[in-house]
Parts: sequence; structure tokens; C-alpha cells
Amino acid sequence: MVMPDKLMRLRRHEAAPETRRPVMLAIAGDSAAGKTTLTRGIAEALGTDRATALCVDDYHRYDREERRNVPFTVLNPECNYIDVMEQHLQLLALGRPILKPVYDHSTGKLVRPVLVEPREFVIVEGLLPLHTKLARACFDITVYLDPPEEIRREWKLRRDTSERGYTGEQVLAELERREPESAAFIRPQRAWADIAVRFAPVTGHTEPQGTPLSAEILLRPTIQHPELTHVLTDDDRRTVHLRLIRDSDGRPVDALHIHGYAPREDSRIVEKAIWEQLSFDHGTALPDTLGEYAPGRRSEALAIAQLLLLWHLLEARA
Amino acid sequence: MVMPDKLMRLRRHEAAPETRRPVMLAIAGDSAAGKTTLTRGIAEALGTDRATALCVDDYHRYDREERRNVPFTVLNPECNYIDVMEQHLQLLALGRPILKPVYDHSTGKLVRPVLVEPREFVIVEGLLPLHTKLARACFDITVYLDPPEEIRREWKLRRDTSERGYTGEQVLAELERREPESAAFIRPQRAWADIAVRFAPVTGHTEPQGTPLSAEILLRPTIQHPELTHVLTDDDRRTVHLRLIRDSDGRPVDALHIHGYAPREDSRIVEKAIWEQLSFDHGTALPDTLGEYAPGRRSEALAIAQLLLLWHLLEARA
Repeated sequence: MVMPDKLMRLRRHEAAPETRRPVMLAIAGDSAAGKTTLTRGIAEALGTDRATALCVDDYHRYDREERRNVPFTVLNPECNYIDVMEQHLQLLALGRPILKPVYDHSTGKLVRPVLVEPREFVIVEGLLPLHTKLARACFDITVYLDPPEEIRREWKLRRDTSERGYTGEQVLAELERREPESAAFIRPQRAWADIAVRFAPVTGHTEPQGTPLSAEILLRPTIQHPELTHVLTDDDRRTVHLRLIRDSDGRPVDALHIHGYAPREDSRIVEKAIWEQLSFDHGTALPDTLGEYAPGRRSEALAIAQLLLLWHLLEARA
Repeated sequence: MVMPDKLMRLRRHEAAPETRRPVMLAIAGDSAAGKTTLTRGIAEALGTDRATALCVDDYHRYDREERRNVPFTVLNPECNYIDVMEQHLQLLALGRPILKPVYDHSTGKLVRPVLVEPREFVIVEGLLPLHTKLARACFDITVYLDPPEEIRREWKLRRDTSERGYTGEQVLAELERREPESAAFIRPQRAWADIAVRFAPVTGHTEPQGTPLSAEILLRPTIQHPELTHVLTDDDRRTVHLRLIRDSDGRPVDALHIHGYAPREDSRIVEKAIWEQLSFDHGTALPDTLGEYAPGRRSEALAIAQLLLLWHLLEARA
């Protein structure tokens, strides 16, 4: 099934390639799903003179103190100025600057807003960028990050205790409290993603300690993806393969599987295949920053996801 | 001379009366020119359910601390996100909410923005609302407050020492420092006003102490004004009169003079003439809040200026 609003988006770029509006990429997902990590490599590969990356989780109607008296969490659209977020996404899509609100995670206060000026590429990450039809209409490419809940909990525990000053119990209680709203507002956005990315361990392949996660990247037929069938088949012997499957919602989809324990040469087949299709203009070497998820730690699955998104950004710009 | 962009504005309202866009009024003028006092009476007469009043002096690019290192004052467009102010005025004119930046005068810091939702009438006061063409195009009625500099200095001294914690010397030094930018950016906006209001004492009529200021209200032919010629003539015997004059820039203009020492019955003639032309729907009594410039202190000149603006707002809405 091809979705009409996606077709509209493709057509817009075909019909008016002369407008220098930025290419807009949405990376949606729950808290600590890996949005910032995915964004960082892409933004770095493009460079700050070509890419603007921003997080749209600052449109809070209430600060932390005020939220004690409201019956919902920050995941709830009611807790946010969703109409202003929509407005700002529209302005960015038109190439206009915005004065974006800023939420200070360390104090829980809303502070001085910042000017965000769209460059050629705008990467928008956040909890709710795909929640409304008008917000979705602003994007050329939409991604949903979909790690299994137990993995996401681990990531959130690690980050919020180390970087945001919470105790483990606080984080777990918060996850519990947020769950109904995650189910109601965050996870449904997966349906609107052109690309759904799930980093997860593969049973029986978690050893040795530190083995990178595997990834399943669903390439929905809502947009045109790079040609990979000539290098990848359903061949089970490979640690990287492309399979035609049915998504959990029944829709046909191409699933790209990258096993975490894949030898570099296997993942290189895909990386090279995408890289060669990239209309990039600075040299031929793949940027080292792609795939880095912590200082000195690489994941080929992450690198492939980032390369795919780079391909989409450059393709939409072409 | 009738200005084309003003005609456009009139036509917009004639052509599409069904669109429920708010009526937009700009009140521009230098610091302490009386913008807030003029605004308050009008907003109160309309009620908070019908009128939104906001100040657009918060689009500062730098806070007070940062401004120590820049070569201009807040009066300079370079010191402000004028493009974001324009954008926000456009959004309000379209009936859309904005998340407006907030500058805290007591601390000199930029703080948490506020949501501003346009009601039927939007009254925008500020230093630079008429600075750019796109900003001006957002308004149905434009006003410039033009007190003589010595009066404005007195007002600024009084306010900034009593309400904003500055010493007299600081205020005077600041006025000095700002003067070139007042001349370059603030005062030129007078040319774009449909109505220029000057509150000033009349020589020989400043006694007794506390005699309200007189006012000259210039009614430019850029918009249609209420019919006053049937009650007012060039008759010099009256303390309130309407005169056809040439403005300082040579343009023909109707000048409504209200003498501060005018007996209430004289000013009542004008007040009643305007009030009777108002398409107001709540009773027949003139609101007492019109003309109040301090608790228990009235100025009929102020009341007339506010009534005129009420007439324009309701007319544009009709």
C-alpha cells in the first residue's frame, strides 16, 4: 500500500526542484531510543554548514515544577504546544528561521529560546515530530527508532543516571508512569515512518560481551530506497541480507538485517553499495564518524542506517 | 497622497469580511512615549476575551550582559531578531498563536517564552513594530506616539527610576547613548502611522500644577477616520477643534487639537460624536477607564485618542 501523503511529498520535489527549501528528516522515537546517536553521525557527515540538527522536545507547556500538578507526562501532546511545534516545522520546511523554546534538562526549567536557521538539510529528532498530520507533512523522510523495550530501558537508565542526575529508582518509576502515554502517543508514530530501525541483540549471538547490537531496518515502499537487491539477496548464509517480509501491521516491506557479529567485509558490501549511489561531492572515503555510538565504539548496523539516511537526504536534494 | 499599501489593507477587509482574522493595531514610539498607557484603556474597554495586547520589545538577540560587548543599543534593529518579530506579527495577523520571547526588565535576562493567542483584536505596542515593510503590512491601523523629547525624558526618568531600579544619572546617560539610534530607527516610523499622537503642554496653559497635557492627534488620509467635521470646525473659540493643516513632512492632514484645560463639556462633544459612531454592543455609557493615565487621574485628550482607536478597531472588524 502506498500512502497518498507520501506520494504528495515525492511529487513536491519533482515538480519544484528549483525551490531551495531544505530537505527535512524526522527521527522519532521514545526517550533514549537512540535518536541523538543516529542524528549525530549524519549531521557530522554533512557538516554544520550544510545540516541543521534540532530536537523538538522543548515545546513544553509546563516546567518540571508545574508538571507535578498536571495529570500527564511530557509524552502527552496535551503537555506540549504541539501547534507551535507544527508551526515551527512548517517555517523550517519553508527555509525560515525560528526562535525555538529551550527546556533545561538539568534544572527542569524553560529558559531563553534559541534561533534555529535551516541549512540545506534539517534533521529533527524528538518524541512527537510525527504525531500530527501537519507536522508529518513537513518531512521528506521519516524514521522511527524502535528498540525492544528492555534495551531502551537499559539505555535510559544509563543516560539519565549518568547525565541527568536521577537515581535508578527514579528512572524506573518514571518509565512506569510514562508507559501508558508511550503506548498511546509515541509508539503509534511508527506507522508513519518511511524507515523503522530496530537495534537489538540476536538470540545466541550476544557473546562475547560488547558484541555490537544487530539491526533490522525496515524500508517501507512509501519512498524510493537505494537499489540493494543486486548486492543482497534472501541468502541466509550472509550476516547482512535483504528480505521481503510482512511488517507487524501486515504491510509488505523490505527488511534489511545486519547482524551485530557480522564481519566488516559483509557490512562493507552494503556500505559500499549505498556509498556508491551517493551523490556526495567530497572525496570517496566513507566518513569514520558513521557508525560511532560511543568514543572508540563502532556499530556497522548504525553506520548502514546512517548511510541510508544520507542517501535519502542527498537524493531528495538532488 | 493616499498610500497604496494602506489601500491594500482597506481592500483586504472589504473583499473578505468572512475571514475571522484579528484586527491588528500597532502603537509605536520611543521608550516611555506612553504606549502602555494608551494601550491599557483600549484593551480594558474591549475586554480580555476580545482583545490581546502584547509588547514586541522582547526580540532581543542579546541579553543585558551580552549587550555590553555590542556596538549598539536595543533600539537598533541589529540588536533584535526583527525577522522573527515579522514572522510572529504575520502569524498573529493570520489568527495563529505564537510562542513569544520574554525579556525580564528587572534582571536584563531573556527568559521563558509565553504563548500569545490572538483574539478578535490584537494591540501590538513596541519600539520597532513599523520598522519593516512586512511588519507594517500586518496592521490595519498604525499609531505613532510622538511626545516632545523633554516630556518623554521626564516620563522615562520617572518610570525607570521608580519601576526599573535605575538611578537618574543612569537613565540620562542611557537616553544620551540611545539618541542616534532613536533618530535613525524609532522616529522615522512616524511616517508610517495612520495616526500620530502628541501629548504636550500648551504654552501659557500649564497652570495650575497638574493641568492635564494637551494633545494633537493627526488623522492621516491613509485610512478612513470617523466623521467629526459636523461637530468640530476651525472655530478658534473652542478648546477642542479640528484643523486642516500640513504635517511637518508637507502632507495634508486633519489635526485634532484637544487642550488640556478644556472643560469636560468641550471634550464631551468629540467623545460623544465618536461614541455614537461606535458599533459597540454593551450599553451606552462611555467606559470610565478611558482617559485614565494614573489611579484617579484623567486626561480627556487621552480618552479621545483611545476612543478614536476603538472606533477604528470596531470599524475594521465590522
